[in-house]
Amino acid sequence: MDRAPGASPPPRRGRPGYDQQQMLEVIVSVFNDHGYEAATLELIAKRLGLSKSAVYHHFDSKSAMLELALDRVLGALEAVFDAPEANEGSALLRTRFVVRAAVRVACEQHRYLTLLLRLRGNSEAELRAMERRRAVDARLRRIFEDSLVEGTLRVDIDPGLAERFTFGLINSIVEWYRPEGGLRPEQIADAVILFMRGGLRPEGMSVRP
Amino acid sequence: MDRAPGASPPPRRGRPGYDQQQMLEVIVSVFNDHGYEAATLELIAKRLGLSKSAVYHHFDSKSAMLELALDRVLGALEAVFDAPEANEGSALLRTRFVVRAAVRVACEQHRYLTLLLRLRGNSEAELRAMERRRAVDARLRRIFEDSLVEGTLRVDIDPGLAERFTFGLINSIVEWYRPEGGLRPEQIADAVILFMRGGLRPEGMSVRP
Repeated sequence: MDRAPGASPPPRRGRPGYDQQQMLEVIVSVFNDHGYEAATLELIAKRLGLSKSAVYHHFDSKSAMLELALDRVLGALEAVFDAPEANEGSALLRTRFVVRAAVRVACEQHRYLTLLLRLRGNSEAELRAMERRRAVDARLRRIFEDSLVEGTLRVDIDPGLAERFTFGLINSIVEWYRPEGGLRPEQIADAVILFMRGGLRPEGMSVRP
Repeated sequence: MDRAPGASPPPRRGRPGYDQQQMLEVIVSVFNDHGYEAATLELIAKRLGLSKSAVYHHFDSKSAMLELALDRVLGALEAVFDAPEANEGSALLRTRFVVRAAVRVACEQHRYLTLLLRLRGNSEAELRAMERRRAVDARLRRIFEDSLVEGTLRVDIDPGLAERFTFGLINSIVEWYRPEGGLRPEQIADAVILFMRGGLRPEGMSVRP
């Protein structure tokens, strides 16, 4: 394909049809199918249909693949909390924004998030990612602390527990969400927000019927 | 130690202080720390402080260890749904009973449940356990279906989604629960039930403030 002078170079390619991002998708599936430690370069190369040296042409090491993959999902989650809507306005509206956006990340990057959730901390790269994940958790916890002060969080659930339950709910989406399934991310986000704010009790039903 | 004639035999022991159940606790930790596939018998024997042949004296194979461990947590979850309280009375009260009991299982068997949640289905033993887990999920879904008919489940969240959210919440406890931590299982169960039934909104606050 002709390219204009000065245009940016094409993405590094593995074989026709694979750019680095697409290779990473496949690699993350291998990590998830066998566990990061058991996912050998042989298994990765075989799934990609490439030689091991061809794979090393694109990634320096298995650890480099892991870091790239984790950075993708962590970067997306951090971007959610960096957005103006996560930092301005009432804590209630900020909560809704970050939950909705985090559900979208969980759906769109379900393989990457699965990888992040299953980290065991056996390497420096894993420990760094787990630290970034904890920092994201802390940002949601701070919004819930604001919500408590604002009067929009119930007083009998601790903000830290509210954060754990909320991320527990969002993270569990990766267990069953499939892009080809019946529910779109937006519908899942609506249901998560209904559940989070009002629980499963029908409107108008008293707390202890 | 002297034992009365006719008394049941002592539990099979690995070395002083270890019975098979205690060995299994250690083995499950190794599975969780490295992933089942990457957890070699070398790693397991080393963590137990035993020779490989001593380990094989107690368990026929790595797969046998996995099956015993998974049977323990699946058996506990199945017992929850077999209890009379899970099968009699209103769907609302049955829901509360099973959620409370499942939270207790999640806390008491957090290592075993972690193992179950991370299964990848790469062996017959894993596939059988995943099938049993799906059957447990289906039993909670049926209680939510009864709850919908009874009028104690909100109509804008599908019973299947209510089940996924509820188990998502309960299963996420294994991520952060530690027996030595500040919260007792009973307190966590109380908070889960508050969250599930009423969400995070303070009592008396309207749905869309």
